[in-house]
Amino acid sequence: MEQPDFDKCGGLLPVIAQEAASGEVLMLAYMNEEAWNETLRTGEVHYYSRSRKTLWHKGGTSGHVQKVRSIRMDCDRDTVLVQVEQIGGAACHTGRRSCFYRERDAQGRWTDCSPMVFDPKEVYK
Amino acid sequence: MEQPDFDKCGGLLPVIAQEAASGEVLMLAYMNEEAWNETLRTGEVHYYSRSRKTLWHKGGTSGHVQKVRSIRMDCDRDTVLVQVEQIGGAACHTGRRSCFYRERDAQGRWTDCSPMVFDPKEVYK
Repeated sequence: MEQPDFDKCGGLLPVIAQEAASGEVLMLAYMNEEAWNETLRTGEVHYYSRSRKTLWHKGGTSGHVQKVRSIRMDCDRDTVLVQVEQIGGAACHTGRRSCFYRERDAQGRWTDCSPMVFDPKEVYK
Repeated sequence: MEQPDFDKCGGLLPVIAQEAASGEVLMLAYMNEEAWNETLRTGEVHYYSRSRKTLWHKGGTSGHVQKVRSIRMDCDRDTVLVQVEQIGGAACHTGRRSCFYRERDAQGRWTDCSPMVFDPKEVYK
């Protein structure tokens, strides 16, 4: 059975989370093998937090979990695409729907392009 | 002016390419600062090839370039999302529309989920 290649980037696999219903790209984070196995076991996306150096159950604090709808793997098995149902409607810790909320305009300025869904001060007390 | 943070991953920035019209995620690859600048200058996506250790003008061989339609940056400035028009209709060197052409089924098997668009033997002579 083919599995993602965790060795290529020192044990970490980049994972793209895409909202299944809309096709919006929500975030990119990383899984180690433990996070991969926990994602498969629970049906909710788990990542490896590089800053906290620990397993990260996305939404474990806020309740805004990501329910797995499909899992895809790329041609060289070093990246995974998960299509998810984003509970709470926002993936970003800033309260925006997508972490990719800044768009570059023709003058090289960054402007907001993703709506604010929740107030982080209310969610992360 | 805020710019992507190239230092976080040793000079390389993960870049998600998404088809602008359909929302389909096509591939993930990496840019160094030179590739970033060339992308902005030309309006066609350039990556850094980790295997060949060189600037990689996507589609330079096959003609299947990626025309930039928008550029987004994530909350911690370490990942970029480019929405593109994929000339030729296929991003993957295998001839499939998307590099994410394998989907995991409930039994853990991988099945093809992205159509074959061209014959790689015809394109890469």
